[in-house]
Amino acid sequence: MAEYWSTLDVDLHLAVDPASGRRVGLEHALREAIRDGRLGAGTRLPSTRTLAVELGLARGTVSAAYDQLVAEGHLVAVRGSGTHVAELAGQGVPSGLRAAPRSSDSLESLDALGAPSALGLPSTSGLPSAWVGEQARSRPKPLGNNLLPGSPDLSHFPRAAWLRASRRAVNQAPNDAFGYGDPRGRVELRRALAEYLGRARGVLADPERIVVVSGAVQGLALLGQVLGGVVAMEDPYIPLFHEVVRSHGAEVVPLPVDDDGARVDLLAGPDFDQVGTVVVTPSHQYPIGSTLHPARRQALVEWACEGRRLVVEDDYDGEFRYDRQPVGAVQGMAPERVVYLGTASKTLGPGIRLAWMVLPEPLVGPVTEVKRHADHQSESLGQLTLAEFIASHDYDRHVRAARLRYRRRRDLLAERLHTRAGRPAAGFALGGIAAGLHALVRLEPAGMTEVEVLKRASEFDLELEGLGGLWHTAPANALASSAARPQGIVVGFGSPTEAAYPRALDALVRTLSWR
Amino acid sequence: MAEYWSTLDVDLHLAVDPASGRRVGLEHALREAIRDGRLGAGTRLPSTRTLAVELGLARGTVSAAYDQLVAEGHLVAVRGSGTHVAELAGQGVPSGLRAAPRSSDSLESLDALGAPSALGLPSTSGLPSAWVGEQARSRPKPLGNNLLPGSPDLSHFPRAAWLRASRRAVNQAPNDAFGYGDPRGRVELRRALAEYLGRARGVLADPERIVVVSGAVQGLALLGQVLGGVVAMEDPYIPLFHEVVRSHGAEVVPLPVDDDGARVDLLAGPDFDQVGTVVVTPSHQYPIGSTLHPARRQALVEWACEGRRLVVEDDYDGEFRYDRQPVGAVQGMAPERVVYLGTASKTLGPGIRLAWMVLPEPLVGPVTEVKRHADHQSESLGQLTLAEFIASHDYDRHVRAARLRYRRRRDLLAERLHTRAGRPAAGFALGGIAAGLHALVRLEPAGMTEVEVLKRASEFDLELEGLGGLWHTAPANALASSAARPQGIVVGFGSPTEAAYPRALDALVRTLSWR
Repeated sequence: MAEYWSTLDVDLHLAVDPASGRRVGLEHALREAIRDGRLGAGTRLPSTRTLAVELGLARGTVSAAYDQLVAEGHLVAVRGSGTHVAELAGQGVPSGLRAAPRSSDSLESLDALGAPSALGLPSTSGLPSAWVGEQARSRPKPLGNNLLPGSPDLSHFPRAAWLRASRRAVNQAPNDAFGYGDPRGRVELRRALAEYLGRARGVLADPERIVVVSGAVQGLALLGQVLGGVVAMEDPYIPLFHEVVRSHGAEVVPLPVDDDGARVDLLAGPDFDQVGTVVVTPSHQYPIGSTLHPARRQALVEWACEGRRLVVEDDYDGEFRYDRQPVGAVQGMAPERVVYLGTASKTLGPGIRLAWMVLPEPLVGPVTEVKRHADHQSESLGQLTLAEFIASHDYDRHVRAARLRYRRRRDLLAERLHTRAGRPAAGFALGGIAAGLHALVRLEPAGMTEVEVLKRASEFDLELEGLGGLWHTAPANALASSAARPQGIVVGFGSPTEAAYPRALDALVRTLSWR
Repeated sequence: MAEYWSTLDVDLHLAVDPASGRRVGLEHALREAIRDGRLGAGTRLPSTRTLAVELGLARGTVSAAYDQLVAEGHLVAVRGSGTHVAELAGQGVPSGLRAAPRSSDSLESLDALGAPSALGLPSTSGLPSAWVGEQARSRPKPLGNNLLPGSPDLSHFPRAAWLRASRRAVNQAPNDAFGYGDPRGRVELRRALAEYLGRARGVLADPERIVVVSGAVQGLALLGQVLGGVVAMEDPYIPLFHEVVRSHGAEVVPLPVDDDGARVDLLAGPDFDQVGTVVVTPSHQYPIGSTLHPARRQALVEWACEGRRLVVEDDYDGEFRYDRQPVGAVQGMAPERVVYLGTASKTLGPGIRLAWMVLPEPLVGPVTEVKRHADHQSESLGQLTLAEFIASHDYDRHVRAARLRYRRRRDLLAERLHTRAGRPAAGFALGGIAAGLHALVRLEPAGMTEVEVLKRASEFDLELEGLGGLWHTAPANALASSAARPQGIVVGFGSPTEAAYPRALDALVRTLSWR
């Protein structure tokens, strides 16, 4: 989903006051946005042309404003890589948090309201009052070429089968299903999941140790509250996930990633000696697409066991592997040291908000307690429906059909990029394993930059996400510095409908075949 | 949507002020409802006969009021199709949870795990590792006599109607309903709620200002995070609610309650001078059962407006009033100073985890942002189903039938306690207004204590809740000290099935007829 997986096209509301003249007004608005952190250090600004079009200003006006702010030290212009917010220009919002547009002046009016002002979340202080939905509404609709990652093909949600399962579930439910219940979730679903996760993902799952949550976001929020301390999270990774853990009480340090998955070797180093928990995507790193090397899996488990530490395994798309049998979950190697986090968001759809954690025994009580304080329990009827859906093997059938569909899509992507990309002046290569719903198109140094690709994509009405917004800079971790960063495009081949996919691929090929 | 309005089964809150005479009062109330948009253009009004019965007025009074408003142009009467609001007439604009037992030693074992130990939540440090489900498992099953508060009669969950609405909702849903969406919730539900809350509860609700949450617990958790500071909450009140607000970043001070509701007068005193937010149950105090006195409603709103403070109105059972028309929400008096918190937990069931907040504009952005960090958004399919359920007026019909049912139960409770309680050596009296799903049996000093009643109830296999567990002692607040506390039993007459209720009442009468 677009809002989740931030792109370089930062959505930013700039209230340009026409009274002070357009150029001066724009300069002022940009300066304010940098100062109050809506434009964080390192953020790449839109091209002068793009911003001019968006604001309805002359391109020269925007260029002049950029030049002025470069001269002031607020911005930095780098040939071939555009204009960025200078590193010390402001107190940045966490990287990758899409600065949402500010609808009016709501923080001012919140103060005016006199409400006790502390916004609980560190990451939202000085933050936008606007939100995804408004953003989506106010932005012109994409014209159908959408290769953004984060979503399966929603047109394949199994409506009829789901309704059948729902009817059986609601008709058979005991009365207490409609009341308050166990914060861990319905036992019917926990039993079905224990069986499914055991056979499909090699997870050692006892229904008593499963907590059903409303999506992976909630799982991470609850773990942040219970575990606290210092949590290492992969870099690059989904910015919202870093934010969620941080805003629920833990300190987050970024852990670099390469073609063999998370750099587990670094955990022994001085930058990570306070780390008590590490969050990883071993089956299919998001967004790089690598799988955790067997030696690193072993090292990870040893690190956890020896130091009595914890691994959180985000197995968001473990069902989808196309080149071989899926690798089993790390959890199966050390169920007392690994929290397994799975979800129906990629197999069915994020809208049903069903995910699950399999916990080491000592965490069951504390996680259940914070879940009770968060929302008492997840909604029952969806849980009973999913339990039916799994028990009837409709879930297996659905996953199998989806696996075939997405495998064909990835094959088509590879074929189009390798054999038909015309005369690619921009060097690129398809990275990552054949799995999941996304692939990384790596951009080689000689070719187009991410910014150039994204800009060109927009000319073909193609929505793409660059790697750029998924990095988490931290001074403590030199390895994640931007110098060492590869450039790439995260292609979400799962998102379009079947009918739209070939057209979207055409647009991608044309985008990459420039010059 | 003509068909939307064509049924007469519309719940409309009309605050008829008897001081100005019945006809004039009704005219005024209708005029106000039309002006502020609760009665939208084209809405068909109930027949004069129906409205007369519902309001307890003579039919002639209602006819005269309708005639007057037709004369004024607010209404239009069309032969054979009833009376409608004229096209240009206006500009539209949980309770009862029990504290879980604390059990054993999981925190120790968490330490043994070596996981970073800080439990994020202040209130859970040293807290329970146990939870409701375990409680249910480890406790002997009740033998059917259950008068615990907090739940409606779950056997009346409208399974068939809900499944019909669900089928329509899932079949008609756009694909994006299965994906990530607006953290505020589905717009279909927010629109339906705005309309419903306006006419049924006198809430001024704009769909843009509604945030759908997964139960009142989550609503309070999000508000705790956003507002922080010092929050006054009624005492007695649901312990979990105090804990939730506290564990999400606010300090909680208890606000005493008497037979006129919350002691709003105390807010001006020194114990409350840091308070920025107060959480109250104005329609029907939980658990005392009083309604907030009109003078205190006024004082509460003044307190909020003058000090630029905030009121959170927990309207958990506002639909259920048996002695007269429900009193409208306080929110209607000051929508910029009041957060309205409503829920489907009492009307349908807590298991569907659907509640809603209507927010002052400046809070919409920050609350949406913390919701996004909590679980991104509530589950979509239940929201779409409830939207359908409301729009089809199945919800009104269901609430009306439930109201009749619970009214009869409360009448029966009053009758049994007043006329058949044998020789009550324990003095007691039924307190609170005729409303909701619970009533307070006050125990007089000369009679049995709470502990004695609860002990004796267990001999009759009767589950009851005493007031005792609902107090929040705080040294800062001498008024809530135990010396001044009344003793009582909170009788949840909504919980049993129809068949079980008479037997449960028998057990209650025998319990109270001791000696």
